[in-house]
Amino acid sequence: MIGSVEVRVRYAETDQMGRAHHSNYLIWCELGRTSLMREAGISYADLERGGFLLPVAYAEVEYRAPLLYDEVVRIETWVERVRSRKIVFAYRMSRGADGVIAATARTALVSANADGRPIRMPPELRETLDRLVCEG
Amino acid sequence: MIGSVEVRVRYAETDQMGRAHHSNYLIWCELGRTSLMREAGISYADLERGGFLLPVAYAEVEYRAPLLYDEVVRIETWVERVRSRKIVFAYRMSRGADGVIAATARTALVSANADGRPIRMPPELRETLDRLVCEG
Amino acid sequence: MIGSVEVRVRYAETDQMGRAHHSNYLIWCELGRTSLMREAGISYADLERGGFLLPVAYAEVEYRAPLLYDEVVRIETWVERVRSRKIVFAYRMSRGADGVIAATARTALVSANADGRPIRMPPELRETLDRLVCEG
Amino acid sequence: MIGSVEVRVRYAETDQMGRAHHSNYLIWCELGRTSLMREAGISYADLERGGFLLPVAYAEVEYRAPLLYDEVVRIETWVERVRSRKIVFAYRMSRGADGVIAATARTALVSANADGRPIRMPPELRETLDRLVCEG
Repeated sequence: MIGSVEVRVRYAETDQMGRAHHSNYLIWCELGRTSLMREAGISYADLERGGFLLPVAYAEVEYRAPLLYDEVVRIETWVERVRSRKIVFAYRMSRGADGVIAATARTALVSANADGRPIRMPPELRETLDRLVCEG
Repeated sequence: MIGSVEVRVRYAETDQMGRAHHSNYLIWCELGRTSLMREAGISYADLERGGFLLPVAYAEVEYRAPLLYDEVVRIETWVERVRSRKIVFAYRMSRGADGVIAATARTALVSANADGRPIRMPPELRETLDRLVCEG
Repeated sequence: MIGSVEVRVRYAETDQMGRAHHSNYLIWCELGRTSLMREAGISYADLERGGFLLPVAYAEVEYRAPLLYDEVVRIETWVERVRSRKIVFAYRMSRGADGVIAATARTALVSANADGRPIRMPPELRETLDRLVCEG
Repeated sequence: MIGSVEVRVRYAETDQMGRAHHSNYLIWCELGRTSLMREAGISYADLERGGFLLPVAYAEVEYRAPLLYDEVVRIETWVERVRSRKIVFAYRMSRGADGVIAATARTALVSANADGRPIRMPPELRETLDRLVCEG
């Protein structure tokens, strides 16, 4: 299952180079995986309220084409790999207008308790995430 | 007592108009009051760990001159007024290079418990803040 | 005419108080007025490409109720006043779930040329904005 | 040559997990390389005014330990590799209080003209950067 969500580049996200600042892509990835999880019936907000955290342990982004103010960005997200304490999400961000791929990314999240200690993820979460794994 | 702290405009803070995006001024104000409080012997981080919060209830900024990437900004902060559940901070942001005033601002913070409910602020905090009141 | 647009509070927008950081409201206001202008047939991106800028000269926000991660925020925007070189927008941000007003805001923008100098706004823009004025 | 610069985690940079949001590390890397370049006599602001850009083409961050509000972060930056149209910077971010490494990162920047097209970097810049290459 590949999740898909769209955002528009905000003015505040641009920099003086006239494009979206590269740090925002990580925020869009976050929107992408939250949205994918929501579509799969998992509320990340609820997980956190239950004392379960998913901090980011690794992130990489390859920037291919600039994204400009007010452009629509389509973020496609999928689960690449799940382990007992780790999930790897992959992302493809493309320009809504012409489908050109603007960036690809990958983030690894660890499952942690409220104190930030790595723990095995709850079985139901693991199961749902396992079912989401695909090749993008 | 007027606190003074300097920041440099970050690249990520610029927008495509080629100046610091106006939302960042509120973040600089936050640096200004944290710094003033630290100088006065109050650690905001410690207050929060003790279950005491100071959420912002009101903010206003008057933007007078743009601030550019890499420019040094001097943030002067003082306490304008203290009530049992409210503090008003005032700010003057000036360009480090020539002292030109780039912006003035004012924020009102309410004293709240960990659930966000308004409470009287701890007496020692009130006392310290009272001593900080000045005319800027 | 009152513009209306919805955003969801992003994880990156929260702070350790567990609510959307107050600086983000200015960014949501920006989304609100861009969206209102788009609905009225004005593309802010195009205005800028034509060498016309609308920097923010004044902003004020009154924060009434916290907004939490993943909550939907409805931003209503209208034009309060138009002068030859100045526009005042007003905003009402409410929680999508129950309609509770979370914040109100007001921003004044000046019309400027590419160098940031105040100039009279183009007549067609002035006309369109005049038609948008309302009482919120 | 290894550049070193310190920042304090800003309140606005925290998220509801109670730590600095992972997207900010890319902004700190940006501070690190700007600072390194400044120490080496290169003003990135001047380069841009001369129509020369260094957009980020790739970024990766490994997050090892959380960074909390008000903690001092030391950012060490060095040049790992220089090519005619590409520079790779590497970073080590450590907690000021105890020197614990909080994150490592790497970013690749391409040299581009004002339109964003890849170009060979100016010879003097290349020379200076070549002299900065080291093993971290």
